[in-house]
Amino acid sequence: MSKLAYLGPQGTFCEAALRILAPDAEGVPSANVGAALDAARRGEAGGAVVPLENSVEGAITQTLDELAWGQPLLITGELLLPVEFYLLARPGTEMRHIKRVITHPAAHTQCRGFVERELPGAVVVASSSTAAAAQEVAAPGSPYDAAISPAIAGEYYGLVQVAAGIGDRSDTVTRFVKVSPPGELPQPTGADRTSLVVYLRDDHPGALLEMLSEFAVRGVNLTRIESRPTGDGIGRYFFHFDCEGHIADARVGEAISGLRRLSDDVRFLGSYPRADQVITQIKRGTADTDFSEAAGWLSRIREGRV
Amino acid sequence: MSKLAYLGPQGTFCEAALRILAPDAEGVPSANVGAALDAARRGEAGGAVVPLENSVEGAITQTLDELAWGQPLLITGELLLPVEFYLLARPGTEMRHIKRVITHPAAHTQCRGFVERELPGAVVVASSSTAAAAQEVAAPGSPYDAAISPAIAGEYYGLVQVAAGIGDRSDTVTRFVKVSPPGELPQPTGADRTSLVVYLRDDHPGALLEMLSEFAVRGVNLTRIESRPTGDGIGRYFFHFDCEGHIADARVGEAISGLRRLSDDVRFLGSYPRADQVITQIKRGTADTDFSEAAGWLSRIREGRV
Amino acid sequence: MSKLAYLGPQGTFCEAALRILAPDAEGVPSANVGAALDAARRGEAGGAVVPLENSVEGAITQTLDELAWGQPLLITGELLLPVEFYLLARPGTEMRHIKRVITHPAAHTQCRGFVERELPGAVVVASSSTAAAAQEVAAPGSPYDAAISPAIAGEYYGLVQVAAGIGDRSDTVTRFVKVSPPGELPQPTGADRTSLVVYLRDDHPGALLEMLSEFAVRGVNLTRIESRPTGDGIGRYFFHFDCEGHIADARVGEAISGLRRLSDDVRFLGSYPRADQVITQIKRGTADTDFSEAAGWLSRIREGRV
Amino acid sequence: MSKLAYLGPQGTFCEAALRILAPDAEGVPSANVGAALDAARRGEAGGAVVPLENSVEGAITQTLDELAWGQPLLITGELLLPVEFYLLARPGTEMRHIKRVITHPAAHTQCRGFVERELPGAVVVASSSTAAAAQEVAAPGSPYDAAISPAIAGEYYGLVQVAAGIGDRSDTVTRFVKVSPPGELPQPTGADRTSLVVYLRDDHPGALLEMLSEFAVRGVNLTRIESRPTGDGIGRYFFHFDCEGHIADARVGEAISGLRRLSDDVRFLGSYPRADQVITQIKRGTADTDFSEAAGWLSRIREGRV
Repeated sequence: MSKLAYLGPQGTFCEAALRILAPDAEGVPSANVGAALDAARRGEAGGAVVPLENSVEGAITQTLDELAWGQPLLITGELLLPVEFYLLARPGTEMRHIKRVITHPAAHTQCRGFVERELPGAVVVASSSTAAAAQEVAAPGSPYDAAISPAIAGEYYGLVQVAAGIGDRSDTVTRFVKVSPPGELPQPTGADRTSLVVYLRDDHPGALLEMLSEFAVRGVNLTRIESRPTGDGIGRYFFHFDCEGHIADARVGEAISGLRRLSDDVRFLGSYPRADQVITQIKRGTADTDFSEAAGWLSRIREGRV
Repeated sequence: MSKLAYLGPQGTFCEAALRILAPDAEGVPSANVGAALDAARRGEAGGAVVPLENSVEGAITQTLDELAWGQPLLITGELLLPVEFYLLARPGTEMRHIKRVITHPAAHTQCRGFVERELPGAVVVASSSTAAAAQEVAAPGSPYDAAISPAIAGEYYGLVQVAAGIGDRSDTVTRFVKVSPPGELPQPTGADRTSLVVYLRDDHPGALLEMLSEFAVRGVNLTRIESRPTGDGIGRYFFHFDCEGHIADARVGEAISGLRRLSDDVRFLGSYPRADQVITQIKRGTADTDFSEAAGWLSRIREGRV
Repeated sequence: MSKLAYLGPQGTFCEAALRILAPDAEGVPSANVGAALDAARRGEAGGAVVPLENSVEGAITQTLDELAWGQPLLITGELLLPVEFYLLARPGTEMRHIKRVITHPAAHTQCRGFVERELPGAVVVASSSTAAAAQEVAAPGSPYDAAISPAIAGEYYGLVQVAAGIGDRSDTVTRFVKVSPPGELPQPTGADRTSLVVYLRDDHPGALLEMLSEFAVRGVNLTRIESRPTGDGIGRYFFHFDCEGHIADARVGEAISGLRRLSDDVRFLGSYPRADQVITQIKRGTADTDFSEAAGWLSRIREGRV
Repeated sequence: MSKLAYLGPQGTFCEAALRILAPDAEGVPSANVGAALDAARRGEAGGAVVPLENSVEGAITQTLDELAWGQPLLITGELLLPVEFYLLARPGTEMRHIKRVITHPAAHTQCRGFVERELPGAVVVASSSTAAAAQEVAAPGSPYDAAISPAIAGEYYGLVQVAAGIGDRSDTVTRFVKVSPPGELPQPTGADRTSLVVYLRDDHPGALLEMLSEFAVRGVNLTRIESRPTGDGIGRYFFHFDCEGHIADARVGEAISGLRRLSDDVRFLGSYPRADQVITQIKRGTADTDFSEAAGWLSRIREGRV
């Protein structure tokens, strides 16, 4: 895969994720998540890297919705990227010179403690992204003294790190996924995750409980559930699920087939290795060998060989 | 099938059931349920007819246990036989002559009202079966004036009906099953029943709830559940289940495979037409076409064709 | 409690159970389980001791049905009595003299190995109970040489033990219960059991699953479930349940109230100390303190004090 | 309640909602949702009106998070407000004059069809809110010809409606809630909704299924579920629930008490009349009378009065 679209501009956390997920790929910045996915859909790129959720902000709903509708794409990998903010400035700038700072409002929120403590009199102006903020600071005649941005943005725009790790909490993480046009799935590794979207057949009470039971009965653990509006009025939702395991696993396949039977539609979003490499604990009676043994037994008893 | 063993002696309700279930078969009376089943197991008969449950007395536990252990047999048919008691006597006997009655204690219980009302001074003596009671009355020099027995016993032993339908309730029914050595199953009819025995893997709290969930998630209705002791101490049980549908049905097959995976052992006791011919209501999403459509879809998504 | 009815005649296992459950009580033998319970109902005895289930034979259905219908009685204690069979004979009898044995058929079944091995030529005749068998042997001019009976029967009828522990398996146990007219319940001990009977409102598919969910959601473990026919036709059942805990426990009370709301009727059969003295494991969040804390919180939030 | 804070500036949909929810209140515009809620918390206003979810955009996560953390507030009312966009301009402006339009990006998205069809050459510039856009157009020497805004913004800023109902879909709705400091709850009406936040005790597989079971067993229907990150890493969530009914209802109270026992914390967010006035269907056995009848019965059986 030579080209991968990502949420630009150059220097975003998303580009940093892309460099780790696909070190040899050429990154192609896109204006927004939808544009990045569309580049993959139209073949302008071999795939895309987009953010899916953040440990503080939650789901990136634009990504959820873009994956749920339109031409299908498959998630083929994921990355948990620590969100580390840097105070970037033109070479020669010192902390005491910094009076006007530019960054994305979410980054401002997450670095509020640092700004109040270390830059008490500074004005903070909003930019459209943390990478764009660095770009603004680097522009000739910029009115800004510094940007709060990822390290990678400094590399791009020739800025230096005046301060590092300036976020108020050190454990914020964003989960990025690599998506590709439909095609061969990643091989099961034993530490896999499967993502899907379920549109309920009818929004009856208990429908969600029924869906969860499909997973529970086959011993499949859910790791994420997100409701999103269908657009057809308050109270009408569809659901994003992540579960442990690979669609090639018998228990996962049977659970998702059950969802398919019960719902209006299920969109498979991919099975791929977990970034955290946690091995799936297989509940007794739900291993592939248990399923194949039971299938053989069923064939025999259906023929009356008991 | 030329010979069928049944719970004798000649003239029992069980023989009456056999005549309806298999009109052309030759009945072979056996001393007890175990002996009848063993005759089928050893090939001395092509099968057997035995009682499984009664609407007043409940399960015939001897049958449940005999089917659960030992060499497997398959239920291939069932019959709901109304339990109709007759007062049988030697020709010429009139009601006012009857002072000594013989019958099985259960029959006595079920005809207590009639006896108290119509035969107020009569002595009632216990026999080992209602058919044996008729045999006793017919014996030369019998000390008994009448027997409470099924009609069929009168035919055998040359007795006449002094009174008919003498049970206190008119709606008592016994369920009989025809069993055969393992072999081809009866074809699905849309109004089928499936019987099985489940031995829990470990008797943990919630194990029964788990078993029932295997049925519920596939939309399979249970119609009977009986617990029986494993013999390994109070509190250790195995279970007899009847469910709607045929093992050839996808939903039934998947449910029972699920039981198999979760339990120490499942013994399939057969799929066969329901005596009451009630068509199985198929819950949305659980028809065979739903399963095959979902299986096709699963195959495609496993290949990445989404 | 001075008098307790029990399943007679004198010398039964049931009387042995009574002597342990209520050493100071005077036992009153009854002809059958129903008569013993009726003696307690009518006040002819202060209570009764009856068998409820056996580890090999299963439920004593007569007891289940007698407790389910008619005037209510409460179980106030239970006992697990090992079933130990003895070969009893008149003083002076030696093993080699024994040619004719009398016992109850169930006892014969359970001692079949001993009889075949030690008494190869002996005839075994059926009696109505193992105690009655001993009585027969003791009768002047008895045609029987020995009885297979409980030890207590020997005491009563002046017989000696020719052989002890002659059952084929040594671990058979019968569970006896002491029942009393309604009144103050035994105090909770932390190792209690609660028994009840549930009549489903309508026999819809899933009704049993719903009932079990009422227990599961409150963390209450079921230890026994028995289905019994309502008498209204094959496929119509009511249920006997035993669960861990005491009705005074908040989780048990709430679960059983839930059953009550969902069903046509619930008959409470008592809360009493478990014979095995196994302490109930309380699932997190279901202790009485959890319930009372939650109730206090609910009161506060209902008043808007959040 | 004389003053209510709302999401400003003047002329927002939120202010329109406030005028309907509390016609007599004085609206106090706040810079953002957090500021509006804080005004209510600090007593600067008697309450606040904020958006909770939108039928196209989904949850307003800032509102969810602000209600979940910090000093508690109670929802006391809700409103479903149709999202109707207008093209507003200074008096005298005609459609053909409009070359530069200003609005919030979300509004631009929802009116894209109108803009492309009716204003093909126009430039659309982003503002921070649709009300702010109207304010910009009204400013002396404004570089903008028109704003896409709610009708109420036209009133405030002296603009006229050049076109009405210009959204691409006519059924978009935003749900607003009125919140107040803790205090007496709205009376139950039979058509109520209850909102709460649940923090799982431990994020074990099946925890969500357990929570849903607490509702299902008491016959309480969920109408909304949203997962939000706890901030402690990807895969750690808490949940917002809406359910049918009022905390004063016995079934709702018991269900929520159950959640409380099972979870680390439950925050009650209020019980209030549903905007759609749909009467809650009460499942058999879960009415208040069923609960009180069962409670009376439980008291009696706990005293042994069966």
